[in-house]
Amino acid sequence: MWSARLAVIVWAAKLASMCVNRPGFVESGQRAMEVGSFASAIQSRRTENSIIRNPLIGLAAYQSLRGSEKYGETSIARWQSSNDLYVKIAMNSRPAIPVATTPSKASLHWGCRDNAKGNHMASNLHAASVVIDGLIISDFGRSVFEDMRKGGLTAANCTCCVWEGFTETMRNVMRWKAWFREHGDILKQVYTTADILKAKEEGKTGIILGWQNITGIEDQIGYLGLFKELGVGIIQMAYNTQNLVGTGCYETRDGGLSDFGREVVAEMNRLGILCDLSHVGARTSEDVIATSKQPVAYSHCLPAGLKEHPRNKSDAQLKFIVDRGGFVGVTMFPPFLKRGPAANVDDYVEAIEYVINICGEGNVGIGTDFTQGYGQEFFDWITHDKGYARRLTNFGDVINPEGLRTIGDWPNLTAAMEKRGWSASRIEAVIGRNWFNLLRTVWGA
Amino acid sequence: MWSARLAVIVWAAKLASMCVNRPGFVESGQRAMEVGSFASAIQSRRTENSIIRNPLIGLAAYQSLRGSEKYGETSIARWQSSNDLYVKIAMNSRPAIPVATTPSKASLHWGCRDNAKGNHMASNLHAASVVIDGLIISDFGRSVFEDMRKGGLTAANCTCCVWEGFTETMRNVMRWKAWFREHGDILKQVYTTADILKAKEEGKTGIILGWQNITGIEDQIGYLGLFKELGVGIIQMAYNTQNLVGTGCYETRDGGLSDFGREVVAEMNRLGILCDLSHVGARTSEDVIATSKQPVAYSHCLPAGLKEHPRNKSDAQLKFIVDRGGFVGVTMFPPFLKRGPAANVDDYVEAIEYVINICGEGNVGIGTDFTQGYGQEFFDWITHDKGYARRLTNFGDVINPEGLRTIGDWPNLTAAMEKRGWSASRIEAVIGRNWFNLLRTVWGA
Repeated sequence: MWSARLAVIVWAAKLASMCVNRPGFVESGQRAMEVGSFASAIQSRRTENSIIRNPLIGLAAYQSLRGSEKYGETSIARWQSSNDLYVKIAMNSRPAIPVATTPSKASLHWGCRDNAKGNHMASNLHAASVVIDGLIISDFGRSVFEDMRKGGLTAANCTCCVWEGFTETMRNVMRWKAWFREHGDILKQVYTTADILKAKEEGKTGIILGWQNITGIEDQIGYLGLFKELGVGIIQMAYNTQNLVGTGCYETRDGGLSDFGREVVAEMNRLGILCDLSHVGARTSEDVIATSKQPVAYSHCLPAGLKEHPRNKSDAQLKFIVDRGGFVGVTMFPPFLKRGPAANVDDYVEAIEYVINICGEGNVGIGTDFTQGYGQEFFDWITHDKGYARRLTNFGDVINPEGLRTIGDWPNLTAAMEKRGWSASRIEAVIGRNWFNLLRTVWGA
Repeated sequence: MWSARLAVIVWAAKLASMCVNRPGFVESGQRAMEVGSFASAIQSRRTENSIIRNPLIGLAAYQSLRGSEKYGETSIARWQSSNDLYVKIAMNSRPAIPVATTPSKASLHWGCRDNAKGNHMASNLHAASVVIDGLIISDFGRSVFEDMRKGGLTAANCTCCVWEGFTETMRNVMRWKAWFREHGDILKQVYTTADILKAKEEGKTGIILGWQNITGIEDQIGYLGLFKELGVGIIQMAYNTQNLVGTGCYETRDGGLSDFGREVVAEMNRLGILCDLSHVGARTSEDVIATSKQPVAYSHCLPAGLKEHPRNKSDAQLKFIVDRGGFVGVTMFPPFLKRGPAANVDDYVEAIEYVINICGEGNVGIGTDFTQGYGQEFFDWITHDKGYARRLTNFGDVINPEGLRTIGDWPNLTAAMEKRGWSASRIEAVIGRNWFNLLRTVWGA
């Protein structure tokens, strides 16, 4: 009976360890044991059926077992509950629930890669991976959305609030809802990480609604819940200057997280909204990192170790956030890169590697900060306080790194990582898996 | 296998016909045949397992079969998909999915009643039924919520917009979200009719967020989608006076549904938001009824045939709406009752019966319009245009009908219907089942 089929539930944090029949791939420790036991159980058929509740592992298992001669009698069903995407491996029996078992066009291969052979599947690595861009603020519309598909983006955190108040931000959300309908052939709104996997399977780009400033709630903590329900999953605590919560990185003095801000962080924790600190001042950032009960992130920053800049983070800051469970997304925004507008995609990979060396490859992701389609008017708006007051900085020409001029060039970033000799496992982690795991932790689904 | 268990799916519109082993209960025609076949199949065990997809029938079957000696070997499991509540009748086997099978405290008995014996279970009828109040606008808070439990309300359409614009209405919704958390022991937000059944099972009152005026969207059709996602399921097209969509019932001239209003109706149809016309002018109402592709409702009105009043609907109007698939909820608001503040609960039942005689007992429900806890300031607010401009009417003393002074007295309404000799089937339909079916049709879930 079904209930008996629930007997084996395998939990594990990393997909890579799923390819248990490939020696050298299983990682050490508890995780490996769990996965090993699961694999043995399948191989020896001690379990008639198994349900894998972790969707990452489930999809990896799905991919690795599907069509395999070794598991010729195995059928695999996928379905979804309100919180989880399940994958069921059923031995010698028909799928228990008549749901679609269509494989994704670009087969997921998390966990099905041999570290030792590094780059041998280079040309397929990007297309096969779950790719997540942790920050895009572009002139959104069909053209950008199509470029997201060209760039192979599985999901992106798209900014829908910078200086706006409540009503304007609701209008921006409303506009996105219309886009989700109008461009439903290539877009899918993301509420949970299961939606990211569905986007991958359906060949669409999942859109995470995010804010670069918390002005959208004005002075109402209760608005956070409304926006979360509408799909806002990431919020930056301040944008460049001071607000009711804290202080931005271009402000003369940073008094840290306000008392109101502490209530806001608690509510974001409760709701499962990721606190972003990229444009936040050092002291406020430190306060949020210390206050938050969930991991927080610099979604898009660069290391000050390569270039001093108010927006760049020191080695100590990078270490501080990951030591407390946090996360660092690395941007390619040229004014903050060592070589500025002369930089190319290899400079970007160098910067990412610099951050990895401090933070560890399991805590780093990408947040490009593509401003595609925008002109001077936009840059004037974002570089003046409140969009119109004093000038905070002047970017000069914003020319994206050579090789990564547009969102559609995203595969070149993966290729540059391969060229640099990174293992496929590291690349998969950095271009998507780490973001996925972080969001799953914070969102709780 | 599971797939084979899907072989028998029984659809039917009315629960009453479920008690197939009680002669004289099965109705004539196609419905009876379907249900009869299903019953025979169970009795002769031609089907190993059966899944009942219609939740009303499913719950009735659940109730009628549970614990029965005749079906001693039958086990029943309930579960829920995104759209439906399922009830599975499994013969000689364990439940296929390990979900809770706890029966509700107040057992549902839709369809388990013998018409011929009328009132013999009077004392249990209210508590056992799904009871839906189609309109409450009270001074919401713990006191009113507790009275809803005392009154045995399974669900209620609670007003959160009268004259407010977008932001104020969002604040009202925000306030409700906080109440859902703070009073989660007795309240449950309703997004779908499955939530209403869950509320019944959990012994809570389901709250449908509703508007009495469409001012909450200001001039943005796109806001409708945001509110629907937040749980607003019923919207009245105008409140007493003219707005961007149409005209209210106290306006000097009613030019009918505006062109903008036609777009609004189409969007409400697309989203699954019920159009309410209680306070809407005659011509605008007629236009909405003719324009809407989904059933629409007077959620809370009284018949002009008993008392002439701008808020009351003529026999022709009542007939017009139901002839086009619509619905009529009957209010007890004393200023519109024949005997005004001298009326008692029997006068209310008389008015409901008057409407049933025109509309048919399958198209009529209750919308009390309880204004519990409010004083003169509130009545001044709702009886002036925009809340402050010209006076539209003067209610005088608002004294609810004797026997139905408070929400907690709701069971007296059911008792008064029984006293009047109504069949249990009619009572169950009018106090909840009809509302349930209407909402299920419009909401699509």
